[in-house]
Amino acid sequence: MTVQLGAFYLFPLFMAGFVQTNSNLEKMDCYKDVTGTIYDYDAFTLNGNEHIQFKQYAGKHVLFVNVATYCGLTAQYPELNTLQEELKPFGLVVLGFPCNQFGKQEPGENSEILLGLKYVRPGGGYVPNFQLFEKGDVNGEKEQKVFTFLKHSCPHPSELIGSIGYISWEPIRVHDIRWNFEKFLVGPDGVPVMRWVHETPISTVKSDILAYLKQFKTE
Amino acid sequence: MTVQLGAFYLFPLFMAGFVQTNSNLEKMDCYKDVTGTIYDYDAFTLNGNEHIQFKQYAGKHVLFVNVATYCGLTAQYPELNTLQEELKPFGLVVLGFPCNQFGKQEPGENSEILLGLKYVRPGGGYVPNFQLFEKGDVNGEKEQKVFTFLKHSCPHPSELIGSIGYISWEPIRVHDIRWNFEKFLVGPDGVPVMRWVHETPISTVKSDILAYLKQFKTE
Amino acid sequence: MTVQLGAFYLFPLFMAGFVQTNSNLEKMDCYKDVTGTIYDYDAFTLNGNEHIQFKQYAGKHVLFVNVATYCGLTAQYPELNTLQEELKPFGLVVLGFPCNQFGKQEPGENSEILLGLKYVRPGGGYVPNFQLFEKGDVNGEKEQKVFTFLKHSCPHPSELIGSIGYISWEPIRVHDIRWNFEKFLVGPDGVPVMRWVHETPISTVKSDILAYLKQFKTE
Amino acid sequence: MTVQLGAFYLFPLFMAGFVQTNSNLEKMDCYKDVTGTIYDYDAFTLNGNEHIQFKQYAGKHVLFVNVATYCGLTAQYPELNTLQEELKPFGLVVLGFPCNQFGKQEPGENSEILLGLKYVRPGGGYVPNFQLFEKGDVNGEKEQKVFTFLKHSCPHPSELIGSIGYISWEPIRVHDIRWNFEKFLVGPDGVPVMRWVHETPISTVKSDILAYLKQFKTE
Repeated sequence: MTVQLGAFYLFPLFMAGFVQTNSNLEKMDCYKDVTGTIYDYDAFTLNGNEHIQFKQYAGKHVLFVNVATYCGLTAQYPELNTLQEELKPFGLVVLGFPCNQFGKQEPGENSEILLGLKYVRPGGGYVPNFQLFEKGDVNGEKEQKVFTFLKHSCPHPSELIGSIGYISWEPIRVHDIRWNFEKFLVGPDGVPVMRWVHETPISTVKSDILAYLKQFKTE
Repeated sequence: MTVQLGAFYLFPLFMAGFVQTNSNLEKMDCYKDVTGTIYDYDAFTLNGNEHIQFKQYAGKHVLFVNVATYCGLTAQYPELNTLQEELKPFGLVVLGFPCNQFGKQEPGENSEILLGLKYVRPGGGYVPNFQLFEKGDVNGEKEQKVFTFLKHSCPHPSELIGSIGYISWEPIRVHDIRWNFEKFLVGPDGVPVMRWVHETPISTVKSDILAYLKQFKTE
Repeated sequence: MTVQLGAFYLFPLFMAGFVQTNSNLEKMDCYKDVTGTIYDYDAFTLNGNEHIQFKQYAGKHVLFVNVATYCGLTAQYPELNTLQEELKPFGLVVLGFPCNQFGKQEPGENSEILLGLKYVRPGGGYVPNFQLFEKGDVNGEKEQKVFTFLKHSCPHPSELIGSIGYISWEPIRVHDIRWNFEKFLVGPDGVPVMRWVHETPISTVKSDILAYLKQFKTE
Repeated sequence: MTVQLGAFYLFPLFMAGFVQTNSNLEKMDCYKDVTGTIYDYDAFTLNGNEHIQFKQYAGKHVLFVNVATYCGLTAQYPELNTLQEELKPFGLVVLGFPCNQFGKQEPGENSEILLGLKYVRPGGGYVPNFQLFEKGDVNGEKEQKVFTFLKHSCPHPSELIGSIGYISWEPIRVHDIRWNFEKFLVGPDGVPVMRWVHETPISTVKSDILAYLKQFKTE
């Protein structure tokens, strides 16, 4: 099932000034020879009620984000809401994965995470408009399998991996996620397309996605 | 100025079944030859507005507690409210010191801590009825001076200090605080009287304080 | 079986100028209520050929030392030789336990340790004139049982335990050995008598032992 | 000054059975667009007497190796002697850099390293027939500049970087050297040509160098 994008939807957004095209240094195109798709993997929703097979997102453009409540980048959460809203018509689905491996900035239980987002940080009643999954590892021995697949389908994000004081997983690998709020875009066929470092502004992520959608449209 | 305790106030509480006397192993009587008092020290209130000199608590029985929002013992917070309420008439003042050194379970900024307590953990609208101070260290090179004084005025709480994965201070010392929610009782003369390990139930802390107040009264 | 000490042997040594009596701060008298003896424990000799039951030292005054080749204190090795030689007539037996837990300064295999001492540090053909045992842990989960017994039979040596960069055992305990070359003296009944911090000069250890032997003699 | 290689010297070695060509997975060809050469860097010899500018090796094929005495791979030392001897006629110069960053397996002082090699490991009177330099870092904030240049001139050697227990440098980077005995071959123009992981047998390193020399000869 492929997503039909009306070019005329894309163009206004592309030009609407929401989009600052940063250098591609931050965007990494994933490898061309990836075998397998995200459809081989699954996860429990944050409230533990639903076991979601990622193949349910076949045909969608899925943005995987490892998130945390008490991070200096937690302000990206509301921006992800905006991104989800704006690009939903184009088949974008944002998925959030709380993780406590980066400076232990997601200390809450699954049942506490939405409360923390709503009342503490970003606070002000914030509620994600995209699916969050159960807290889990994205690096190291107990990393969630979908993140093993995503990480090794794309170039590593930076020469710097981190400092021992903030690394709480074993072993340390080149393709490890560097910090909260790294992002992977997966195409409608379940194959990873792009990866962004955590500091990449959402606006850049958005413009990269729009450019990709446009190109996807013409192809 | 010494606190006049009506023995008849103490006795009912002592017997009222709220009190389970645990073995004294958990309570440690501080050293008799302590020099100096807490009145030499000070701290900023959690909101940063007030610089409090601890000598303002002269004549009070002050309970110092290092606290954290996302700790397995955070349920002690409401119990500390009850303790403060019940023993306020006897001159007890509870003081809370948020600290992120134990498993990094206090990741929030000062401005976020009360929100986390109110809405996330313990949540349910909880508001401490005692003073909280600015987040700070209680162990290691940058430990708050009052905690240096408190720790070295009393025996260390346990043979086990901890595991490297959860110790995020330097250097490691015998008298270091072991985890969130350790407690020190300071007498009305500013001299430390008792120290409890973090796991000590508040009910035991209460009965120890009542026994101490009773003895203090008769002396 | 008690060691008969000729007082006249002790006195000249005591006065011979080899002995500088340092403050007792460095010496710690072990606890009086110790149960058990070193005779419950054993170890393999460095070359692995012999399994030594410590009860074979019944009647002797045994000095346990955790040693390392590449330590700033390795110069104590030749001084331990001198100590063994001088106090052998009085029943002193020095036992060395190579250990790699302090800054990883004993990296060699058992078969390499004597070579390292002889040719590298202290070098110059040095050969210990006392028994060395197989390399093993003295702190943490896999610590040798005799060191668990020794450590908990005596006060801990210092408030400072160490810095995380140099601590490679789990968990961290108050009575842990602080560095290479700590020493425990055990009486002829197998019960620990004294403990010294690593920096204590051997001359001080010697004078403390002589004073103890003298007292032991009169008692 | 370029090295004239008599093809007839290369061919017999290439075929002489000393050479097992392993998969190139272990060999990494350095980047083509490297700017700068090793000639911009220098180091002090192990005994501290000589300050060597690497430009003195212009025209030579230089093999940089970070070494350690108490490593499971220290047996590569005698093999490096053989390599130096066999390929000296073809302009190969082996340079060894003792480093204590991998499991702290080079604890000795500069003055002790040759003693350790000669009498302990590999022992048996072993003396390197190639230049050793002063002990120093090859990763992290204080890494020697020549290793910064070498590491970033070639692909990183493996996805696995290591486990926190054995990493004693900050920060951790993708191109960091993984363990003792990694190797870099630098051409006669001072530009890095090849990099090998630490486990690569010296025989493979040799056959890779011979193949390179042969190709270098024909070009």
